Amino acid sequence: MGNTFGRLFRVTTFGESHGGAVGVVIDGCPPRLSITLEAIQADLDRRRPGQSRITTQRKESDTAQILSGVQNGLSLGTPIAMLVRNEDQRSKDYDELREKYRPSHADFTYDQKYGIRAVEGGGRASARETVGRVAAGAVARAVLTAYGVEIVGWVEQVHQIRGVTDPSTVTRKQVDANIVRCPDSKAAEQMIAHIEEIRKAGDSVGGIVSCVARGVPAGWGEPVFDKLEADLGKGVLSLPACKGFEVGSGFTGVDFTGIEHNDEFFADDERQVSTFSNRSGGIQGGISNGMPIFIRAAFKPTATVMREQRTVTVSHENTTIQGRGRHDPCVLPRAVPMVEAMVALVLADHALLQSAIQMSS
Amino acid sequence: MGNTFGRLFRVTTFGESHGGAVGVVIDGCPPRLSITLEAIQADLDRRRPGQSRITTQRKESDTAQILSGVQNGLSLGTPIAMLVRNEDQRSKDYDELREKYRPSHADFTYDQKYGIRAVEGGGRASARETVGRVAAGAVARAVLTAYGVEIVGWVEQVHQIRGVTDPSTVTRKQVDANIVRCPDSKAAEQMIAHIEEIRKAGDSVGGIVSCVARGVPAGWGEPVFDKLEADLGKGVLSLPACKGFEVGSGFTGVDFTGIEHNDEFFADDERQVSTFSNRSGGIQGGISNGMPIFIRAAFKPTATVMREQRTVTVSHENTTIQGRGRHDPCVLPRAVPMVEAMVALVLADHALLQSAIQMSS
Amino acid sequence: MGNTFGRLFRVTTFGESHGGAVGVVIDGCPPRLSITLEAIQADLDRRRPGQSRITTQRKESDTAQILSGVQNGLSLGTPIAMLVRNEDQRSKDYDELREKYRPSHADFTYDQKYGIRAVEGGGRASARETVGRVAAGAVARAVLTAYGVEIVGWVEQVHQIRGVTDPSTVTRKQVDANIVRCPDSKAAEQMIAHIEEIRKAGDSVGGIVSCVARGVPAGWGEPVFDKLEADLGKGVLSLPACKGFEVGSGFTGVDFTGIEHNDEFFADDERQVSTFSNRSGGIQGGISNGMPIFIRAAFKPTATVMREQRTVTVSHENTTIQGRGRHDPCVLPRAVPMVEAMVALVLADHALLQSAIQMSS
Amino acid sequence: MGNTFGRLFRVTTFGESHGGAVGVVIDGCPPRLSITLEAIQADLDRRRPGQSRITTQRKESDTAQILSGVQNGLSLGTPIAMLVRNEDQRSKDYDELREKYRPSHADFTYDQKYGIRAVEGGGRASARETVGRVAAGAVARAVLTAYGVEIVGWVEQVHQIRGVTDPSTVTRKQVDANIVRCPDSKAAEQMIAHIEEIRKAGDSVGGIVSCVARGVPAGWGEPVFDKLEADLGKGVLSLPACKGFEVGSGFTGVDFTGIEHNDEFFADDERQVSTFSNRSGGIQGGISNGMPIFIRAAFKPTATVMREQRTVTVSHENTTIQGRGRHDPCVLPRAVPMVEAMVALVLADHALLQSAIQMSS
Repeated sequence: MGNTFGRLFRVTTFGESHGGAVGVVIDGCPPRLSITLEAIQADLDRRRPGQSRITTQRKESDTAQILSGVQNGLSLGTPIAMLVRNEDQRSKDYDELREKYRPSHADFTYDQKYGIRAVEGGGRASARETVGRVAAGAVARAVLTAYGVEIVGWVEQVHQIRGVTDPSTVTRKQVDANIVRCPDSKAAEQMIAHIEEIRKAGDSVGGIVSCVARGVPAGWGEPVFDKLEADLGKGVLSLPACKGFEVGSGFTGVDFTGIEHNDEFFADDERQVSTFSNRSGGIQGGISNGMPIFIRAAFKPTATVMREQRTVTVSHENTTIQGRGRHDPCVLPRAVPMVEAMVALVLADHALLQSAIQMSS
Repeated sequence: MGNTFGRLFRVTTFGESHGGAVGVVIDGCPPRLSITLEAIQADLDRRRPGQSRITTQRKESDTAQILSGVQNGLSLGTPIAMLVRNEDQRSKDYDELREKYRPSHADFTYDQKYGIRAVEGGGRASARETVGRVAAGAVARAVLTAYGVEIVGWVEQVHQIRGVTDPSTVTRKQVDANIVRCPDSKAAEQMIAHIEEIRKAGDSVGGIVSCVARGVPAGWGEPVFDKLEADLGKGVLSLPACKGFEVGSGFTGVDFTGIEHNDEFFADDERQVSTFSNRSGGIQGGISNGMPIFIRAAFKPTATVMREQRTVTVSHENTTIQGRGRHDPCVLPRAVPMVEAMVALVLADHALLQSAIQMSS
Repeated sequence: MGNTFGRLFRVTTFGESHGGAVGVVIDGCPPRLSITLEAIQADLDRRRPGQSRITTQRKESDTAQILSGVQNGLSLGTPIAMLVRNEDQRSKDYDELREKYRPSHADFTYDQKYGIRAVEGGGRASARETVGRVAAGAVARAVLTAYGVEIVGWVEQVHQIRGVTDPSTVTRKQVDANIVRCPDSKAAEQMIAHIEEIRKAGDSVGGIVSCVARGVPAGWGEPVFDKLEADLGKGVLSLPACKGFEVGSGFTGVDFTGIEHNDEFFADDERQVSTFSNRSGGIQGGISNGMPIFIRAAFKPTATVMREQRTVTVSHENTTIQGRGRHDPCVLPRAVPMVEAMVALVLADHALLQSAIQMSS
Repeated sequence: MGNTFGRLFRVTTFGESHGGAVGVVIDGCPPRLSITLEAIQADLDRRRPGQSRITTQRKESDTAQILSGVQNGLSLGTPIAMLVRNEDQRSKDYDELREKYRPSHADFTYDQKYGIRAVEGGGRASARETVGRVAAGAVARAVLTAYGVEIVGWVEQVHQIRGVTDPSTVTRKQVDANIVRCPDSKAAEQMIAHIEEIRKAGDSVGGIVSCVARGVPAGWGEPVFDKLEADLGKGVLSLPACKGFEVGSGFTGVDFTGIEHNDEFFADDERQVSTFSNRSGGIQGGISNGMPIFIRAAFKPTATVMREQRTVTVSHENTTIQGRGRHDPCVLPRAVPMVEAMVALVLADHALLQSAIQMSS
């Protein structure tokens, strides 16, 4: 259970880190949308390991195949199945992990839940499962493009280094201008240097990804439980290593009083309504208000570190373990396409939900 | 759409602020659990307006009725429907609101979404909709009690005043020892004084609610989308005025390196596994690990303030509006039972989900 | 579980035969539709016990209340909750039933499933639970009216007496022209006489309800699992006492060869496509084709008979039981509005599902 | 939408007749069950085209691959993805079908719904989509085996030739003893001869598949909408060409009075409760009663016939069309594993649903 996301634009992902393949089935993609393998592959390439010197050096080409639901570059309205074959399997690396649980990984909890566990590469708990999310996100973007929605995510913070970026103007080009995906180029340089140091120290760091969705029309979101921020929160918090989520002013909003915090309305000459400020982050009462939707997500430092740590064996005896192998000292650059994908999945789903009550024939 | 929460323990709420009633239907409550009107009413009384001098002075007795699904104090396994009749309706207060949108309220977005809106008391967007959540939360607690799970929420912060509370020992009795529901009595005093000042100033403040669930067994949570933190995040972020959610170290976790942040394991003499620290907040890879589950939720300042603000009319012309009437200067004390209810709903649902794969006959 | 029906037009029913109330919450009804208590009550009155001499003589006025989701006769887009209070409770009638299971009733299976059971009136297994379905069906009709869809059900057969009715022209007025709801007036007379005889004999009979939906546009239905006939089948088969379902030619279609059975297409001068025959019952490949949708449902004879029958006690010892009290000798006349309601619920849901992929803004 | 089935044991199928692959993702399969490619392939081989002289002569080896969720022959509790690559593609056969709609096929309705259509082999509307269902059914069987449940389906009727089979004893071996899958060997011979004649005549026939599930414990089924017969009905009616469904006495039950029809209970010396007759088909009030579950499904004659028929072009102009190519003159033998698969999927799902309310830890 738990491997399906969305109500009308529904994605179901599958796949362990090692073994046959990882992939996704999208059910509910509207027909006659342009879906190209190139667009999907471009998104996957931003998620791919080994893409730069500050990500894991594992080599996986992550080449996507479309198995169904698309013909001549157009969606058929039927399920779109996509997969990426697993490569680069070094199962011998995993003997120790069969016996010992890695701290702050999911080894122990998977065993507790299922009584069985795919040891290699963390199995289903590997960040490799996000391949399906990112591929689906590219398809969701085809839905959103029809509504004029544009999503841009970026690295705002790595460990204690923070960049400054304007959500109302930032572009993907600016984000991809450096390997850490922080559009503040000065901060980016420091982040990259810091990650390299951290890697050399066998340690790891986390950070914050910000993401904006511009062009979302007013009216998306389904109170009271499927409020737009609730679904965005769920989507983003379901990403590996994500520990916090904010919309608009978020935790910082607590520092304001109501008078300071409220977003006052104004109408322009075409009676188009906007707000002077956007502390609501584009959502009021769970429904989009037409302003940019702005969210932030906290990612903890990667759990794998090259240092001896206390842990227990699968028989629950005390022992120690030390990380080895090729791992990301910092997942943030690769988390950007993941966050964007989850935001796209949520918005595409809500676009269709809102379309439903329009009762077109 | 969007008024149902949960997969196996499913709650569907209904009701506007004014009009007939607010309530809930719970489908999937296991049979033969003790369900008493007293327990439900006790939770509702903690959510009720007018309960103290720092909450809204609206008077609603919020008396619950059980319509179905319970007989002789035991659940039948059939849907449990509960409702609270609406009282205290002053519809004449609402003439201005028919014409003007209140800043940072949901008036504008409801009109954009539905093209129609129940003006009185904010309609469905009123915090009154949480009556059904809190009543359902009391039933969810009956499920969780069978597993030995205990949930305690409290006010950690009001505006910039922060209390210090130990999640591993805090009790509901300590929480309810003062009207602001902050177990740090010194901070509580300051919070109460500050809220009264803010009220006099016609302003409002927000804050942070923390919540712990102790006794959750290892193994609850459904990766990859219905991870425990993702569902907790969705549930809590769906509450009115909630803008941020954290699990474990949350946004603060970003300040640590991996070596500092990891929760090392140890086993006691009975081979019971725990972690030395609990920065994971009791969840690893989306599955509970047996440690206390710890979350935090940020609530923005109440949108209604007694100050003239710029806004637009329903015809999208610029105007101003000033809040009036009886409103909470700070929702935090009343948000505590709401957060606890959402945590209880999520955990009860996951308890049943995990029970399903045990394949009992 | 199992008390919610539909994906976008979602109904959740609740309530036992005795106790507080039976009712329904509808989530997903589009806003700004005309919803009147009169229309709902009119449908409930066709389902009501005691409406004629051939139905049960239990007296329940079945007066509906709307608790939420409707204001000034218009739907708000928020959940519509409705209830009917239970009356006429004679709990003393039920002492024997506490001890013995009635053959072909759900007493035994509810005890096996839940380990507890509301004895009075059959509890949740009573046909009284269909109050919520019928009330919701009246709301679904408001959706369908917007699409020009009209639903008419009628009694085709009672025991071995069969009427002949033309699905393409039959009206509700014709159906309600007699108390057995069979538009073939000659057959109707025989049916009524037969039911009265059967009642005097302390026996019961079943029959067949037919139902047509005219005006359904081509394109509704969601292959491969939520085909229109699959959802119609599920909805109708979930009614109490229903044992069989057919669409179009149904079981009779087996007697034909493909050449005989196929529905050949033709286009009229406006290039409007129809089929010469309609053995498909308006559905091909799970999707409506624009022709009338035609279904049939078989209802078994009422299980309560005034005759001693062999059964077991709740302690699983052999005994006998004899039906007593006021029961329907034949549910068919009251089953007509139930079948119509389920057809309306399915079609309204599929109308919205098809609307979703139109991607209106 | 509509390509997912089940709540806890959830299957999502994908794939068109031609193109990449057909397959399925199963989410919610309990961990540590024995899942072998051999068992899955054995079921697929019973569904495969070209398996005998009375099925279509299309050659597809239908070789299954397991991509995820299984390791060393055991389920992991994570999604099980399986696929079968498409072979044998003769796209040139399909030029006429691009221009003309085949009567009683889904060509017209897919175009009406989606505005686009995979022409080759009927695309998603092809019976080839059932590959995923049958593969998933084999996995569901692994769940059911743990409960001691056994499912046997067989051909009861082909056109007007009817076999007689005892549901309480029939075995799969008896079913597979002849190519038409009718355990009544005399009837089987007639059926086979008739199908061969019908094929020579360029015509087609339908028939009836019966199916029994023995060993289902009392207590499965989720009233009021997800009654066991309602879910079985939906599952079976969602199969290609299925037009009718019955449980227990079905439509024939109408011919009885209540006294004749009721299933009287008795208890044996171990206080095990059974019924003397089984007109309920093992289900009362939507919940299994421990008796064999018995259903019947009507399949219409194959729509493709080698005879000129009237139809319309995609521009809605009158024309004619004649079937050609390799098609099943009678789908019944291949429908047996499909019906068994749907019954298995429904029962596995309900097994887990009932397990959930047992609240095991």
